[in-house]
Amino acid sequence: MTSRKTGEFARIERLFAPLAAGFPGALGLTDDAALLRPSDGHELVVTTDTVVAGVHYVGDEPPDLVARKLLRVNLSDLASMGAQPLAYTLNAALPSDLEDDWLEAFTRGLAADQAEFGIALAGGDSVSTPGPVTLTVTAFGEVPAGAALRRSGAKPGDVVFVSGTVGDGALGLKAQRGELPGLSQVDRDALTARYRLPRPRLDCGARLRGLAHAAIDVSDGLAADLGHIAETSGVAARLDAASVPLSDAARAALARDPALRDAVLGGGDDYELLFTVPADAVGRVEALAEALALPLTAIGAIESGQGVRILDADGTAIALATRGFTHG
Amino acid sequence: MTSRKTGEFARIERLFAPLAAGFPGALGLTDDAALLRPSDGHELVVTTDTVVAGVHYVGDEPPDLVARKLLRVNLSDLASMGAQPLAYTLNAALPSDLEDDWLEAFTRGLAADQAEFGIALAGGDSVSTPGPVTLTVTAFGEVPAGAALRRSGAKPGDVVFVSGTVGDGALGLKAQRGELPGLSQVDRDALTARYRLPRPRLDCGARLRGLAHAAIDVSDGLAADLGHIAETSGVAARLDAASVPLSDAARAALARDPALRDAVLGGGDDYELLFTVPADAVGRVEALAEALALPLTAIGAIESGQGVRILDADGTAIALATRGFTHG
Repeated sequence: MTSRKTGEFARIERLFAPLAAGFPGALGLTDDAALLRPSDGHELVVTTDTVVAGVHYVGDEPPDLVARKLLRVNLSDLASMGAQPLAYTLNAALPSDLEDDWLEAFTRGLAADQAEFGIALAGGDSVSTPGPVTLTVTAFGEVPAGAALRRSGAKPGDVVFVSGTVGDGALGLKAQRGELPGLSQVDRDALTARYRLPRPRLDCGARLRGLAHAAIDVSDGLAADLGHIAETSGVAARLDAASVPLSDAARAALARDPALRDAVLGGGDDYELLFTVPADAVGRVEALAEALALPLTAIGAIESGQGVRILDADGTAIALATRGFTHG
Repeated sequence: MTSRKTGEFARIERLFAPLAAGFPGALGLTDDAALLRPSDGHELVVTTDTVVAGVHYVGDEPPDLVARKLLRVNLSDLASMGAQPLAYTLNAALPSDLEDDWLEAFTRGLAADQAEFGIALAGGDSVSTPGPVTLTVTAFGEVPAGAALRRSGAKPGDVVFVSGTVGDGALGLKAQRGELPGLSQVDRDALTARYRLPRPRLDCGARLRGLAHAAIDVSDGLAADLGHIAETSGVAARLDAASVPLSDAARAALARDPALRDAVLGGGDDYELLFTVPADAVGRVEALAEALALPLTAIGAIESGQGVRILDADGTAIALATRGFTHG
């Protein structure tokens, strides 16, 4: 934290200081910078995301969930690189009329997820803005040098896997907006919870090092993110829509409205891991799924060429109305 | 850069991509995260600052200077820790009506300072905002493990030094605001240039490792930053106002209006290094000043106790009207 702060901002920094207590390299947030030292033989993995109230979240979400989602989205990026999280920095541009309660709840959310994921605040900056709350988290993790998972290693013949279930994020956003009125409250709540509080697949990502040829987290949407792997790897990909794993709530939503399939395949915010492995490693993936008690489902294949083909159960090509998330 | 971007934001990221070309760990900005590896035996130094248009800069400054100042403010924090810069990330929240020219000029400013300081863009995020331009730079440097300069090591008997000249930042802001009408255009331009484009003292900071007991960069104001050293180190400090080094332009301004002394001692944005060394190391500081062709001036001393005393040439205590910068 820089220190050109008086009054209000000194108070804010007092709120943040306990979040750095467990991390010696934060230097108590009293110095000009923080110190980070990856373990011997490791390199640092750095990812960063900015969210703006009214753009990336509605603005009336519980502030602790805003905090936790922002952290988790960054942790999910670390997971997709096979990294173990170490620490994060937070930059907060805050309107002067922001209520004290908001910031305190926000801080509680950070504290909860710090405990859950074993990370701490290493530094940051807090400034005033005449605009909306604007939050940047930069997360730091580590991987053994040279072992980071990448988007670019997929090879023809690879099998495409995804962790957990897909589509809950996009359907959860719809549920939160009241766009799934026919669905049971239980199912709507389950989907909304998934949208608001994704689970970064850190253990899975770490175990995929040396196993997966390519990996990404599902943030833009399953089809778009598979497209990122295909493009960066210089290959084509086939997505078998009927194999895509669905939660009970998503299945219930699709049963009522089959057109929601586009949201499942094209929507974003699932934060599951999408990865490719050579065909002879499928058994290792199955063993990993058992070890993690996490579904890892084969949903397609890597082929020569370019682009992503989405096939229905009978092999018919599907065109999505939307491919991926387009908020700024 | 996250990739959930279409249209406008794809264009923005094309603008940024060349800035990452020289840094392999950026992975071409096409992956979920960047890789940073400090040299063997080194640790990473991380600092971050956020600026908001209309709060931290007026808004009509040349965008290339906004970019360069934001980078340099962060590099100055690295300098004050004795670190050598490696790379940076950029998070940009941009109004949708921002002119193309603005962003292109901003990018040119980044490119110019990347070349000057040997750093590259490692990653980032660009999002839309209904509010003002909000920019976060997180800068990464490295120091030999355990050798980072800190604020906390000052000891009674230390001599306090400052690099370069002090007060140009605060007077430059006044000049830019038209508050120094009696000053010559040459002097006003010199001060404005110092305010808009500080020089991070990276070489000096690196050479102070193993020499300075404590260091900080002058961003909040000379008196306030000396206060930070005193407080963090658990000591008192004496500042000899008559010894504070002034530029010709600052001297001319003070000659016209002696009351500007408060701005010189209390204003911020100089980004010079303020540091303490044991009395027997003064000769080494003088040799360093010669080697760097950079004035390093003794301006006070560390004492037992707490707080900062500012003394006039005749030993009279001075009270400042303001101590330090208080923008958010």
